[in-house]
Amino acid sequence: MTLQNDLFLRAVKGETTERTPVWLMRQAGRILPEYRAVRAKLKDFKELVSSPAFAAEVSIQPVDLLGVDAAIIFSDILVIPDAMGISYEMKEAKGPYFPSPIRHEADLAKIRIADPMADLGYVLEAIRLTKKELNGRVPLIGFAGAPFTIFAYVVEGSGSKTFSVARRMMYENPALSHQILQKITDSTILYLKAQIEAGADLVQLFDSWAGILTPAHYEIFSLPYIQQICEAVQTAPKTVFAKGAFFARKSLAKLDCQVLGLDWNMDIAESREMIGKEKTLQGNLDPCALYGSFADIKTETEKMLRAFGKTRHIANLGHGVYPDTDPDKVRCFIDTVKNFRG
Amino acid sequence: MTLQNDLFLRAVKGETTERTPVWLMRQAGRILPEYRAVRAKLKDFKELVSSPAFAAEVSIQPVDLLGVDAAIIFSDILVIPDAMGISYEMKEAKGPYFPSPIRHEADLAKIRIADPMADLGYVLEAIRLTKKELNGRVPLIGFAGAPFTIFAYVVEGSGSKTFSVARRMMYENPALSHQILQKITDSTILYLKAQIEAGADLVQLFDSWAGILTPAHYEIFSLPYIQQICEAVQTAPKTVFAKGAFFARKSLAKLDCQVLGLDWNMDIAESREMIGKEKTLQGNLDPCALYGSFADIKTETEKMLRAFGKTRHIANLGHGVYPDTDPDKVRCFIDTVKNFRG
Repeated sequence: MTLQNDLFLRAVKGETTERTPVWLMRQAGRILPEYRAVRAKLKDFKELVSSPAFAAEVSIQPVDLLGVDAAIIFSDILVIPDAMGISYEMKEAKGPYFPSPIRHEADLAKIRIADPMADLGYVLEAIRLTKKELNGRVPLIGFAGAPFTIFAYVVEGSGSKTFSVARRMMYENPALSHQILQKITDSTILYLKAQIEAGADLVQLFDSWAGILTPAHYEIFSLPYIQQICEAVQTAPKTVFAKGAFFARKSLAKLDCQVLGLDWNMDIAESREMIGKEKTLQGNLDPCALYGSFADIKTETEKMLRAFGKTRHIANLGHGVYPDTDPDKVRCFIDTVKNFRG
Repeated sequence: MTLQNDLFLRAVKGETTERTPVWLMRQAGRILPEYRAVRAKLKDFKELVSSPAFAAEVSIQPVDLLGVDAAIIFSDILVIPDAMGISYEMKEAKGPYFPSPIRHEADLAKIRIADPMADLGYVLEAIRLTKKELNGRVPLIGFAGAPFTIFAYVVEGSGSKTFSVARRMMYENPALSHQILQKITDSTILYLKAQIEAGADLVQLFDSWAGILTPAHYEIFSLPYIQQICEAVQTAPKTVFAKGAFFARKSLAKLDCQVLGLDWNMDIAESREMIGKEKTLQGNLDPCALYGSFADIKTETEKMLRAFGKTRHIANLGHGVYPDTDPDKVRCFIDTVKNFRG
């Protein structure tokens, strides 16, 4: 099917576009009252993630209601550990909790390589439904967590400010850490390939906890697994968003991917210089900037657009949009990008 | 009184020392069973902070038990908001909680400039007692939170992953944000001067949440207040530790202070190049490295020492020592620094 709006995919490839494409991380979510209405019908977040029709509905909402240039499938990075046999609960206001975290060699036996068809069919079905409903209006983004970030959750057993339990294993038992990371990587490769087969036009890897590693550990425990995935997944373009990994920008530039995400801490000109001209950059307005006045949002967004320049940029925030953001402020951000002619 | 061990203060001034001095952030704390024994006698953390004799006792423990080259007064950065009339509770495992956070112009009236003698006499008394008990063995470090970090807590009302409530105010009402920051700054200047008068040989500012700001906001909402403090406090040398502010290293280099702390994400050679030769650098071993084997700790510590070089370095971790660290591993880190002749 020919896409009616292919700005996003052309920017991914580095082609010149008539304007910069725009979408937001977490655009399908709590910012929209229409999302909250769907969510209210269901028991919890996990039920929404695992209900393809509802997941498709909320994935499409931002296309209809905000006018973004790409949809992203509504899901969670933690579906992978779930599919590997490491189940989790999502506690409201507390985040994910793993009753049986992976801590010892013996726990390895509890982990299987995820079979996307058998274990993650609900995501694939949500992608197919979303793709059908989108009907070529905009491309659809699939995603997964980067292996280190998934490792951090399943070893720690929950979110954490320091992830010191997970990071302890990397110092105490690097061999076991690598075995776990490899199983996550193998699962993720199969999963992303299946997402693309189901209709995802691009896949994004979220290394949400990249910023807690030393530069040396990032090179050992995160980048090689991201690169394995990038090399194995060749049927669609790839975006890597390593939040906080300011120290790894030169290494990230060498990955076999088309797009790198920048968080709001990263200076745009400096990042472009470190990364070079071969990657499209995605980001990076401070999500808190959307708490400002409409005039300030316009000013800040235009400042960002000028700093990135006209090509090889996909406008986004530097993090997922915060749930208490006024949708009209989000629209102001999007419309500013759409109306900008630099 | 002449100090018997002045390695730390000589390194602060940039003098050549026979070896690199070493201490650890949070060395007075839960890593030591002797600390936990004192803590168990008291109702809670806040009671320990506000009991000069006990605070002095735990401040001295790491000098006796670990052999560090400097003591740091056992206290909390949140004594300042408390002294300004913004009271907080310390919830075990949850962190600080402010029942009445500062959110609106009307809340400004609730804030007073702290009077160190009247409001923070217990810290000053703890410093005097510690100084007396140390009896010149090693210097004593005083400290305070940097104004932005205190602002983040009192506006947010608690710890947070995003501090989006506090950061929202900076976009919605920058004028109010600056008023709050100025009151914190004025209080902190008086407080640090009083600490020095009571016996602190150096004062350290902790900008623990620096890393959540954009580079532009850091220049507007954090650095000018740190610089005000640095300029106002001239009776002792100063250390600034802006955790996560990798983007501000060149600006931090211009502060009127002697020492800059590096966290474990910051590459040592790159930081030295950005900061120049006029500052002593403090840090920056990954606190999780102390979970490794004794051999690995020795290797990692020596690698760090070589990267910093022989002068203008104070060995430390890149963050406070994590509470579940084995004291023998901490001793291994300290002894490696002491025995290194690289």
